[in-house]
Amino acid sequence: MTVLAPLKLTCRIEDSLMKVFDGLEVPGAPPLLGQAMRHAVFPGGARMRPRLLLSVARACGDRHPEAANGAAASLELLHCASLVHDDLPAFDDALIRRGRASVHKAFGEAMAILAGDALIVLAFETLGAYTRVTPQLLPDLLRVLGRGVGATAGIVAGQAWESEPQVDLRAYHQAKTGALFEAAVVTGAITGGGDPEAWLSLGRAFGEAYQVADDIADVLNGGGAHLGKPTGRDAALGRPNVALELGVTAAAEHLASLLRTAMETIQPCQERKALQLWIARSVDHFLPKSLGAPMREQLLEAVQGSR
Amino acid sequence: MTVLAPLKLTCRIEDSLMKVFDGLEVPGAPPLLGQAMRHAVFPGGARMRPRLLLSVARACGDRHPEAANGAAASLELLHCASLVHDDLPAFDDALIRRGRASVHKAFGEAMAILAGDALIVLAFETLGAYTRVTPQLLPDLLRVLGRGVGATAGIVAGQAWESEPQVDLRAYHQAKTGALFEAAVVTGAITGGGDPEAWLSLGRAFGEAYQVADDIADVLNGGGAHLGKPTGRDAALGRPNVALELGVTAAAEHLASLLRTAMETIQPCQERKALQLWIARSVDHFLPKSLGAPMREQLLEAVQGSR
Repeated sequence: MTVLAPLKLTCRIEDSLMKVFDGLEVPGAPPLLGQAMRHAVFPGGARMRPRLLLSVARACGDRHPEAANGAAASLELLHCASLVHDDLPAFDDALIRRGRASVHKAFGEAMAILAGDALIVLAFETLGAYTRVTPQLLPDLLRVLGRGVGATAGIVAGQAWESEPQVDLRAYHQAKTGALFEAAVVTGAITGGGDPEAWLSLGRAFGEAYQVADDIADVLNGGGAHLGKPTGRDAALGRPNVALELGVTAAAEHLASLLRTAMETIQPCQERKALQLWIARSVDHFLPKSLGAPMREQLLEAVQGSR
Repeated sequence: MTVLAPLKLTCRIEDSLMKVFDGLEVPGAPPLLGQAMRHAVFPGGARMRPRLLLSVARACGDRHPEAANGAAASLELLHCASLVHDDLPAFDDALIRRGRASVHKAFGEAMAILAGDALIVLAFETLGAYTRVTPQLLPDLLRVLGRGVGATAGIVAGQAWESEPQVDLRAYHQAKTGALFEAAVVTGAITGGGDPEAWLSLGRAFGEAYQVADDIADVLNGGGAHLGKPTGRDAALGRPNVALELGVTAAAEHLASLLRTAMETIQPCQERKALQLWIARSVDHFLPKSLGAPMREQLLEAVQGSR
């Protein structure tokens, strides 16, 4: 199982996403818009958020697998939409994403704005399409996803903090990355049959750990190349960055503590070991290569030691 | 009842929208983003789409009034989001909307993009919040709203046709305005307890009538002033416009025929008369003043005669 399980999760995500896009192939739809949306979603990045969602759902017993697949696809569509809009000239003006042209570079600004909008709408439509036999899950799923991406504490709020005259740093960090990881864990628990509240803390710790690792990668210029995006941008754009504030070593120590917290807060469940293994693997994936072997080893030990 | 009913509908819509915005007033939320979103929604325009939705729900028996209120607020938030993004420099570059500064003029382009995104998310969150006791309605509501705003035939598709190298005129018109009116009627039927399929044709005819009236107003420069937006823009921006293609008189005849169809396709229901009255009033509101009294009278007679 431990060999096949990660592959199986990836298949569930890609299958669901492909089915969603098959549904867009209808006569009378504007073709360029559809191409721009595909460009934003395929080929994907690490699909970290939907994989986390399905891992938690599986750990909880995978009670409503169809709903979990829909929530996973929905979450990834929302994440991709945020990347398309973050890359726009009004924000980061990024020309490269996942190693190739960003959507606005490839399709123009107007089409990129619309592709992002359409991906958000598609995310919620997808959620409905995958819960036709479990509609009782929908109010909670809509609430949690809305919180993860919305205007008060979600990724849109996180992006907005970069345009506010006064920045609430804690809220910024949590909203920009943490919120969607939290939504991944909680929607995983809802669709898996677990207690959503009890899983919140894992989402929070894992999300913050991912953000700190990303901040370290951004500082260690070149180290983020495996993410297929430019680095050193936080300093250039004056964005808050933990590794810039504390230094890389202190940031790495903070990261180790977050990873320990994440591992320890995993709820007692049928598949606790499999989830711990999945998290350890993911950490290995998102830790910047440029941290150097000794520091990476130490961090991976922090994860291993907590299992 | 006939005097109080329209006021009651308006109250239901404004109350629901205000409650939704009260929910955004939480500590830690980025304040400018919230202000930009409010600017996009209050004070509103004619609230034509949610009023149509509630009128149909009432005609069907208003079986799930809370769900209808949520769907009405959701629909209006989606409509406002589309206006915010359509006004952006990448599209119409409109500086004025509803008689005052557009969102990007008042808050900057970045904040306008985010406000639009956040309004879309909020629309779906609202739908979930208002259907906690009727979740069985959600899959259909999500499907219909998704179709009304999405990438294949909704308002995002309509806007995208303006950036496609080859335009499907029929699809463009239907998607740009018709789709959301159709969604208003169908979600009204779903939440009111009617048969959604049976109500489709009213939505289609009413939506097209509204678009033709808007096209006429745009051509009769100055006549659209009551909508609080500039006119003569279709010709300037090279956008398809029925009144430009056929001339105002032929467009008005087409409009009369659409209005007759709309009135005749109203399903047998408890409150058929009230709905017909509401439609007649709405037509009186959205017919351009600049059409002149005789032509307006003739069109209103087309509506009256079908009652």
